[in-house]
Amino acid sequence: MTVKNAFYAQSGGVTAVLNASACGVIETARRYPDKIGKVYAGHNGILGALYEELIDTSQESDDDIAALRHTPGGAFGSCRFKMASLEENKTQYHRLIEVFQAHDIGYFFYNGGGDSMDTAHKVSYYSKKMGYPITCIGIPKTIDNDLPATDTCPGFGSVAKYIATSVKEASRDVDSMCTTSTKVFIMEVMGRHAGWITASAALAMEKEDDPPHMLLFPEVDFCREIFLARVKRTVEQHGYCVIVASEGTHYADGTFLSASRTTDAFGHVQLGGTAPILARMVKDTLGYKYHWAVADYLQRAARHLASAVDVEQAYAVGQAAVKFALAGKNSIMTTIVREDDPEKYVWSIGEAPLEMVANVQMRMPDHFISLDGLHITAECREYLKPLIQGEDMPPFRDGVPVFTRLKKQFVEKKLTAFDI
Amino acid sequence: MTVKNAFYAQSGGVTAVLNASACGVIETARRYPDKIGKVYAGHNGILGALYEELIDTSQESDDDIAALRHTPGGAFGSCRFKMASLEENKTQYHRLIEVFQAHDIGYFFYNGGGDSMDTAHKVSYYSKKMGYPITCIGIPKTIDNDLPATDTCPGFGSVAKYIATSVKEASRDVDSMCTTSTKVFIMEVMGRHAGWITASAALAMEKEDDPPHMLLFPEVDFCREIFLARVKRTVEQHGYCVIVASEGTHYADGTFLSASRTTDAFGHVQLGGTAPILARMVKDTLGYKYHWAVADYLQRAARHLASAVDVEQAYAVGQAAVKFALAGKNSIMTTIVREDDPEKYVWSIGEAPLEMVANVQMRMPDHFISLDGLHITAECREYLKPLIQGEDMPPFRDGVPVFTRLKKQFVEKKLTAFDI
Repeated sequence: MTVKNAFYAQSGGVTAVLNASACGVIETARRYPDKIGKVYAGHNGILGALYEELIDTSQESDDDIAALRHTPGGAFGSCRFKMASLEENKTQYHRLIEVFQAHDIGYFFYNGGGDSMDTAHKVSYYSKKMGYPITCIGIPKTIDNDLPATDTCPGFGSVAKYIATSVKEASRDVDSMCTTSTKVFIMEVMGRHAGWITASAALAMEKEDDPPHMLLFPEVDFCREIFLARVKRTVEQHGYCVIVASEGTHYADGTFLSASRTTDAFGHVQLGGTAPILARMVKDTLGYKYHWAVADYLQRAARHLASAVDVEQAYAVGQAAVKFALAGKNSIMTTIVREDDPEKYVWSIGEAPLEMVANVQMRMPDHFISLDGLHITAECREYLKPLIQGEDMPPFRDGVPVFTRLKKQFVEKKLTAFDI
Repeated sequence: MTVKNAFYAQSGGVTAVLNASACGVIETARRYPDKIGKVYAGHNGILGALYEELIDTSQESDDDIAALRHTPGGAFGSCRFKMASLEENKTQYHRLIEVFQAHDIGYFFYNGGGDSMDTAHKVSYYSKKMGYPITCIGIPKTIDNDLPATDTCPGFGSVAKYIATSVKEASRDVDSMCTTSTKVFIMEVMGRHAGWITASAALAMEKEDDPPHMLLFPEVDFCREIFLARVKRTVEQHGYCVIVASEGTHYADGTFLSASRTTDAFGHVQLGGTAPILARMVKDTLGYKYHWAVADYLQRAARHLASAVDVEQAYAVGQAAVKFALAGKNSIMTTIVREDDPEKYVWSIGEAPLEMVANVQMRMPDHFISLDGLHITAECREYLKPLIQGEDMPPFRDGVPVFTRLKKQFVEKKLTAFDI
């Protein structure tokens, strides 16, 4: 087997454990110097390949690579850039393969969501056609947990743990003061098209009737009357009401609440996130004192509260990508497989063809959402629970977490500049 | 010394470590059964005394009381209720003392902010006048860190740690993606009248130029032009800009940004929190992609990320309150004293007369804010740094923190009902 270099890139929204996958790839590749030369990382994802901005990870110390495991974000830079389709723009794919060829790259590890799997699939296909076949392995990543073929997506478990913990803590706050102060607390969470993050808030509950009392999923059409009636009933019964709402909460006609215009008591038009819109509805109709929170990036960056299971899985899908590539596999994504064990949660690493995962979005299945559309089922809880197990705190210094900063040394360019 | 019962109450906005003070009071009182009979806790703060809703803490197990140390919120209920002044409404003070007398209460421990210290002071004075003198000790609590006479206020250090950590994490996220995505991230934090929480975000920095790049304090008048110029310069220099803004950010005429009306590109009037208003300004003027977060209650409930120093101090001010009462002290608040040690942070417990701390609000001193008004000074950093040291995680079960739920058994009422 000839020695080839590898290219690794991070794509799309970053997570608390994306760098753990990078760590899995690089540490594993370093163990096979007879097969993999250097691992080049794309600066800002796939753009790094197109612009020939390759970061030479061999310049980073073992300690710094190990520290990626507890560093949130995307250490090499990620990007929001969707490759054109192969039919529409062959030039981009051509350029990628040119760059890979110029730098003797035989492996392409792409760490991202559905779009990225599509790109990796096409690179695999097109590189073969061009006579310079590249082994392409996808590594799943998305907090939205919406990739098919894998039991879960690295990044999701840590957000789920953060949301469940935060809702549990904030509910104690509201519970303490509801007699004379805030009665309704609304927390807006990410997941515009899939309700997995919203669902994870239910893991805050120890028993039925515990907060959160209502979940608003993007899979369920929002109805103002049902929402307000449930808030009222919950406040009357428990003294307060905690709601977790997806940023993708929408009316039956598909309009997002966050894009809607409501008018306050003074006739002012109100625009903004989902949480403030819901809060205003509560205030105007029921008159309850409210508070709302939008955690935004905090939720997907919260490495301090990462799920140990999620960190392990993120590392494992990166590690397996290298091993699969060396075993001659191609055009697959590494997956997480939940073993059929009624006693405990057991998982292993599997694989799925890239063409099967590319551009497919998994929403919450119907049987995971309660009949009223406002909570999860016991089956959903059983699915979610194992994913947030275990605490994996980063090291702290001076009271805050310590993250690594890589040197990010660029490889010398060999080609002329490329315009996208 | 005759045995007297004690009354303990929680007041105002709750914190991640308020119950640690309760734990300090109750555990310490239990060690002196020859001096203190039972500790009765007010249900929903001082309202519990007025309504004669007393929770008998002797019914709670030692384990449950110990678990208060890691349980956020107010375990006995807190309230937003300001006692009328003694001049205006003697009836309320009269009632308090009647209830205390009926239940043989000789000690009043009041855990709260400036208003509460005023109440405690008046109870001490008036009870003496009524011939039933009650020993009144205030226990400081406020995330706003704005009480005088104490070096810091329990509750603040944990919020500071949460904000510094969250900003550090989220900044990594923005840094990873700024080339093609979000360039401006705005995080709104609590502290309407004092900028201590905003200031604590600066503890996220390891070196100059690290995020957060700009802090908006309630102590400094907001200027749209200066703000936007700074955002632009920072984005041009670093590729992105992270801003932490107090919810109390206001214009020179005193108007809060959150109360202001801005008009978006479509002519829609925009109302909402400080962060979305700032984000809209950035978008409309500079055109940068933005994200914003409002952590709201999450920040003051985040027991999972409590500062170990803060937890210890919260416990200590509760413990000392009991010891001071038994030593015959009266009408004082327990305080945290920073010892003059250039080598390391050393603190001890002190005391201050209630009348000196009642209704006084400490804002950030001028020399803690940089000359441009948009960051902190080195002196401020030295002050803040020790307060967030150490991690004190609660126990976790099934991936989320475990908090205690007290039995909250009420003492039988002896008096007729009272209307406020």
